[in-house]
Amino acid sequence: MSDIAYFDNAATTFPKPEVVYRFMDSFYRECGVNAGRGQHKLSARANALIEETRDLILDLFHCSNKTVVFTKTATEALNLILSGITINSGCTVYISPFEHNAVTRMLHHLQDSIDFGIEVLEVDGDSKNYNMEEISKQFSEKRPCCIIVSHASNVCGAIAPINEIFTEGKKYDAVTVVDMCQTAGLIDTDLSSDIFDYAVFEGHKTLYAPMGVGGFICKASINIKPLIYGGTGIESANQNMPAEVPVKYEAGSHNISAIAGFNASIKWIKEKGIDHIYETEFENRRKLIEILSSFDNITVINSDNGIGVISCVFDGYSSDDIGYVLSNHDIAVRTGLHCSPYAHKFLGTFPAGTVRFSVSYFNNDKDFEKLTEALKYIEENS
Amino acid sequence: MSDIAYFDNAATTFPKPEVVYRFMDSFYRECGVNAGRGQHKLSARANALIEETRDLILDLFHCSNKTVVFTKTATEALNLILSGITINSGCTVYISPFEHNAVTRMLHHLQDSIDFGIEVLEVDGDSKNYNMEEISKQFSEKRPCCIIVSHASNVCGAIAPINEIFTEGKKYDAVTVVDMCQTAGLIDTDLSSDIFDYAVFEGHKTLYAPMGVGGFICKASINIKPLIYGGTGIESANQNMPAEVPVKYEAGSHNISAIAGFNASIKWIKEKGIDHIYETEFENRRKLIEILSSFDNITVINSDNGIGVISCVFDGYSSDDIGYVLSNHDIAVRTGLHCSPYAHKFLGTFPAGTVRFSVSYFNNDKDFEKLTEALKYIEENS
Repeated sequence: MSDIAYFDNAATTFPKPEVVYRFMDSFYRECGVNAGRGQHKLSARANALIEETRDLILDLFHCSNKTVVFTKTATEALNLILSGITINSGCTVYISPFEHNAVTRMLHHLQDSIDFGIEVLEVDGDSKNYNMEEISKQFSEKRPCCIIVSHASNVCGAIAPINEIFTEGKKYDAVTVVDMCQTAGLIDTDLSSDIFDYAVFEGHKTLYAPMGVGGFICKASINIKPLIYGGTGIESANQNMPAEVPVKYEAGSHNISAIAGFNASIKWIKEKGIDHIYETEFENRRKLIEILSSFDNITVINSDNGIGVISCVFDGYSSDDIGYVLSNHDIAVRTGLHCSPYAHKFLGTFPAGTVRFSVSYFNNDKDFEKLTEALKYIEENS
Repeated sequence: MSDIAYFDNAATTFPKPEVVYRFMDSFYRECGVNAGRGQHKLSARANALIEETRDLILDLFHCSNKTVVFTKTATEALNLILSGITINSGCTVYISPFEHNAVTRMLHHLQDSIDFGIEVLEVDGDSKNYNMEEISKQFSEKRPCCIIVSHASNVCGAIAPINEIFTEGKKYDAVTVVDMCQTAGLIDTDLSSDIFDYAVFEGHKTLYAPMGVGGFICKASINIKPLIYGGTGIESANQNMPAEVPVKYEAGSHNISAIAGFNASIKWIKEKGIDHIYETEFENRRKLIEILSSFDNITVINSDNGIGVISCVFDGYSSDDIGYVLSNHDIAVRTGLHCSPYAHKFLGTFPAGTVRFSVSYFNNDKDFEKLTEALKYIEENS
């Protein structure tokens, strides 16, 4: 692990804070049981951990007026929301140009049975800034029934002005969905407003939690259809899922090991301070861009306003070729289309894809030195 | 942990083998990244772990001719299968009397849009033995389009003769689904035969893996519709899920921490020997039944042929009352309907439910002594 310079943090942050590993292990050893209300002591303790973690999440997003639904992954959360909300024939669904396949493949699947349209929010090709004037026009020309926006692109890091977009969308009563996989726990965001219907998070990315837990923040009054049907530990005789939120959407056993890690990671974020984490990652992003931009054979796909996710194209080589050489230099990046083909179409890097470098709080000078050496090697051998 | 006598192993086995905790922690610290083919070294190593774990599972079930699909939970696996296979209006779906809400709530949901019938396989009320003669008659009277059977009941432990039932069902080309949540890794089962279409497992129960990974064994040629749509790391430009199995059904990040634990647990099962584990649990079941049967105020719901899951009714007290007293004596059981209301209807314990005691390989004499003491206390205070 210490030998690898890890620039694949947009896939999953690695390493995690030491407290996350420790608490995952210790809690699972001590209390690795099925959570349940009114059951045995260990079960009640596991349940208390889950409820405390929900509260920590609501506090992190300044929205004690809302509730947290846990899923196993953000992909499940997005599937649940998109198949659960009402999208009728003739509707228009707006997406950003940067949506992940967890959104676009699900929408494509829904189009098999519902004849709705998909429009892409206007974003400037150079700056990657969202053009609010044009977006207002888009909405007035074709009323939005639903707006789905990646808070930050997992390909180029571009940040979306979700407050402005959703405020505009709410003039038309659109259902709003923000995919915060790349920003939750990194960009301090107040989700208390009614303009946010569904805010999806992934534990194991910017929240520094382990794999196995994602979810979304919503009003407790939501009443969409579940994606997964099964045991809930309550109302077992009822063959419908219980109406109560979040339990309606949480069939099956909670992953106590992952939620323990999540609990520890949010406490770590709060202790460090979300702004401090953002500034540290931003400084790592600055170093990364500085290094990448210093090589003439590399085209950096930049955005005026972005997180620490940077895509590059190398002269004369495919992204996979570069990934292979970097891997041989013990550098971890992700190459290709990053499960976001539409983002690459927008950026002009489809179908070849890019080499994606993504930093976290934990990248250090040694990582950047290693990267510089490897990029020099590639330049010299080009 | 050491203070609790844990008899809630049907919910999740606890504790896990020491090697499971250790490998979960060490692998996740060293290589807690997104698996991927042809990506960086850590990613390739994570991918190799997943593929090795699939092979270990196929070997455990003697079915190298089949493939493993990983899901996050057995509930997700059952939902995927039941919503994916073809159930047409007018069809008859057979279930055992012991199905979990992961099956029955999903079927109930499917009945909202498809007009199919549900029939219950004939089981003897006293012995809990499946009546194959009657079942043959049932099939000949109403042709089975799909047969779903819990290999062992999570309420009373009764084991189903899945070979006989599915052999009979295949005469009518029925799709067969066995829920092995309570038996995988405990009852040595050869799944190589074509009579087994879908065999569902849950890592964190009898397989002694951590929470966060379940799945099913099937032929690689299956072509049912996915439950979850999203990124697969391959064929990203394709807006349909890739046709390739298992990747078609595994959208989103694999849970590397859980799969590492699963890898270690299967190796542990193989090292101990599945028959040795079964015999140890069977001996713990014998001790449990002996203790429970020695109290006049306890009605033990027994089966001729069962695993270490025993339901009881206590004279004069609700199951929740008894659970509360046992919890105060540091004994962990699960009370109520165990997410299987139909099993309780069959057993005559609906809607009050039962106190369920379930053992694992790890129960010890101290647990049984503690249980005996607590049961004496209850008897004396009744």
